[in-house]
Amino acid sequence: MRILADQNIPLVEAFFGELGEITRLPGRRIDAAAVRDHDILLVRSITRVDAGLLDGSRVKFVGTCTIGTDHVDQAYLKAHDIGFASAPGCNAESVVDYVLSSLLLLAEEAGEALDERTVGIVGAGNVGSRLAKRLSGMDVPHLICDPPRARDEGRDDFVDLDTLIERCDVICLHTPLVDTGDHPTRHLMDARRIRALRPGSVLLNAGRGACLDNAALHERLAAGGDLRCVLDVWEDEPGIDEALFPLVDIATPHIAGHSLDGKMRGTELVYQAVMHHYGLPVRCKLGQLKPDPWLRKLVLTEWAPPREALALCVRACYDVRRDMVGFERYRRRFGMAEGFDRYRAEYPVRREFSTLRVDLKKNNNDLREAIAGFGFKVKLAGK
Amino acid sequence: MRILADQNIPLVEAFFGELGEITRLPGRRIDAAAVRDHDILLVRSITRVDAGLLDGSRVKFVGTCTIGTDHVDQAYLKAHDIGFASAPGCNAESVVDYVLSSLLLLAEEAGEALDERTVGIVGAGNVGSRLAKRLSGMDVPHLICDPPRARDEGRDDFVDLDTLIERCDVICLHTPLVDTGDHPTRHLMDARRIRALRPGSVLLNAGRGACLDNAALHERLAAGGDLRCVLDVWEDEPGIDEALFPLVDIATPHIAGHSLDGKMRGTELVYQAVMHHYGLPVRCKLGQLKPDPWLRKLVLTEWAPPREALALCVRACYDVRRDMVGFERYRRRFGMAEGFDRYRAEYPVRREFSTLRVDLKKNNNDLREAIAGFGFKVKLAGK
Ligand SMILES: NC(=O)c1ccc[n+]([C@@H]2O[C@H](COP(=O)([O-])OP(=O)(O)OC[C@H]3O[C@@H](n4cnc5c(N)ncnc54)[C@H](O)[C@@H]3O)[C@@H](O)[C@H]2O)c1
Ligand SMILES: NC(=O)c1ccc[n+]([C@@H]2O[C@H](COP(=O)([O-])OP(=O)(O)OC[C@H]3O[C@@H](n4cnc5c(N)ncnc54)[C@H](O)[C@@H]3O)[C@@H](O)[C@H]2O)c1
Repeated sequence: MRILADQNIPLVEAFFGELGEITRLPGRRIDAAAVRDHDILLVRSITRVDAGLLDGSRVKFVGTCTIGTDHVDQAYLKAHDIGFASAPGCNAESVVDYVLSSLLLLAEEAGEALDERTVGIVGAGNVGSRLAKRLSGMDVPHLICDPPRARDEGRDDFVDLDTLIERCDVICLHTPLVDTGDHPTRHLMDARRIRALRPGSVLLNAGRGACLDNAALHERLAAGGDLRCVLDVWEDEPGIDEALFPLVDIATPHIAGHSLDGKMRGTELVYQAVMHHYGLPVRCKLGQLKPDPWLRKLVLTEWAPPREALALCVRACYDVRRDMVGFERYRRRFGMAEGFDRYRAEYPVRREFSTLRVDLKKNNNDLREAIAGFGFKVKLAGK
Repeated sequence: MRILADQNIPLVEAFFGELGEITRLPGRRIDAAAVRDHDILLVRSITRVDAGLLDGSRVKFVGTCTIGTDHVDQAYLKAHDIGFASAPGCNAESVVDYVLSSLLLLAEEAGEALDERTVGIVGAGNVGSRLAKRLSGMDVPHLICDPPRARDEGRDDFVDLDTLIERCDVICLHTPLVDTGDHPTRHLMDARRIRALRPGSVLLNAGRGACLDNAALHERLAAGGDLRCVLDVWEDEPGIDEALFPLVDIATPHIAGHSLDGKMRGTELVYQAVMHHYGLPVRCKLGQLKPDPWLRKLVLTEWAPPREALALCVRACYDVRRDMVGFERYRRRFGMAEGFDRYRAEYPVRREFSTLRVDLKKNNNDLREAIAGFGFKVKLAGK
């Protein structure tokens, strides 16, 4: 079999090597001529997959190693009996790392611990449900709003959005952009709800920019300093509102999900779908193929105070300030929109919290729980 | 012998226990009545040591575990044949850590490596000479200006200040405040020299606030954004210029030297002087008594890029942003002057780079040199 893959997809050789010959190309150079003689096409969101690309080719399977599928004409694939897979949830842990690094930084600035506030999660899909799981592990109180799931699963432990806003002082948006149906999300956080946020609240959006009315947010932030804000996604990306930008405490260019581990998990998910499609056994596992992170291990003294120990693990592994500083540099150099896109394209390597092993020489339950709850791998030395 | 010690001096029991009975008091409660029946008095800068404190006491030795001695009437001690010691240089490594953490952060913001610029060191005493040593270890080009040493030691490798300003783009001030003699330092960096700084320069002051004309600096910073600035010391501390403050890139409240290791080294230096004074053998060594840092060890993969690896070691051990964020919080809560003093008094534990062991599984010379040069302890695993 002949496989054509975007050169920015990691581990393609390791996963797909046994299937046949692999050709690599930059995403922008994947065109009809390049595709024609291949059986399997592996892309990222930069490549538009439609009749123009595939007509006359022998492609029988398309995989996009991304969670988004907007760039793929799925109706065309179906009509031509071409298999398809994307990688839903592949970078959800990465987004959760981003959220926790951001919330920890804001808590540090406020002189608080993370568990002093109630977190509200809006949208409990791949990302939101993993965030809830980690918050549970850390004993951080939280509420969930997800009306579609509440309805489908008959859950009565979820709350509606207005209740969540009333009862939480950290609101995290993890909804997709939905314009139709019973639960549209465009401007889900509208002017009224933004006004209703409790003084001193934190508002974080790492779902889709337009779920939050950016103009209304701008108005509230400009009016006074009682709301802190974390935006990774923005209305009209990459040409985002220059006046809103400086009012946002943590402003990043849609990179919450950009860990290397997320990208590698994307490859694995598509690999599994391909093997399934061809009725072949799934032999490779990401765990065996992942490169060691630059920071392999951190050894803590067992009497380290949990709060400080946690902060240092986070700073060493993924400090969101790296991306604030990096984006700021690109923005000054290339302007807002170009800086936004370039920073994403040239994104520096980032590993997930789960790749960092933290060793304790002796047990200390509080410390162990705080660090494991955050998502790090804790080992007692000698075990 | 009876020893009275400020309760904020670390390791007094460990060092002085063999000499006699130790009483501990808060610095503010060390008064004539408390001192009277003691032989040795150990203070910090908060306690004024003069006739009012010592007249009628049996004190025969005073040690201040600080580099400053302004709070001690040394003439009185001499006249009454009371031994005296301070702890010059005890926190010099701590200041160097601060300088390197700050320069690394600014380099990161500029998208540069540290060794792309020439560093000018003004004042090569305890602090400045150690900074020079670490820069040498890191192959960072640097020039030194220290006219008193140039004169006394006949050195011709030092340069004068105007040459240094002309040839360097990072200027670090580490001079004491001197008003008299051939080489006064008050407003050593005056309006003319501040104007002469090359565009894009970094100016750092961790010596004494008044060595730098703060009003002139304010003027240049307000006029345009081509100078980046790091101030740990300020004119008229703690009531520093509210208008200058927000223009300074890294603004901290005189904490560059505040590592726990520096304080413990202060105790050791005074202990050595006491033993010397009484003709006793110096048996205790700080190395044996120091508590393990919370972060004992960090294990890196040998293919980690030196620049990123260095940044993560620094972030994990001492990130100057911790103090920017902390001071900002105190300033908002207590106002400038009170926030300044309180943050110093309640300073969180900080360990020096030299306490962090960085392990490499296999050798990588570039990586090893970069990390060791910065001041970390590098070990090859198994050695
Ligand atoms: N910032 C990033 O880098 C990044 C990375 C990954 C995902 N995302 C985005 O985050 C969003 C969530 O991703 P996911 O993988 O968890 O998606 P998902 O489809 O797994 O989950 C979305 C959840 O939102 C819920 N939902 C839908 N409408 C809702 C409403 N009106 N109110 C509350 N909840 C509602 C759904 O029921 C679902 O459970 C997506 O838009 C995705 O594109 C962003
Ligand atoms: N920010 C902090 O937390 C912190 C910590 C430690 C020291 N300090 C301050 O830093 C300064 C230096 O400390 P140190 O321990 O290195 O002092 P030091 O006395 O060991 O060294 C000072 C050096 O400055 C030189 N010098 C004097 N006048 C000069 C001039 N006109 N131009 C250039 N050089 C000149 C001296 O020759 C000497 O070598 C002191 O003022 C000290 O109080 C600040």
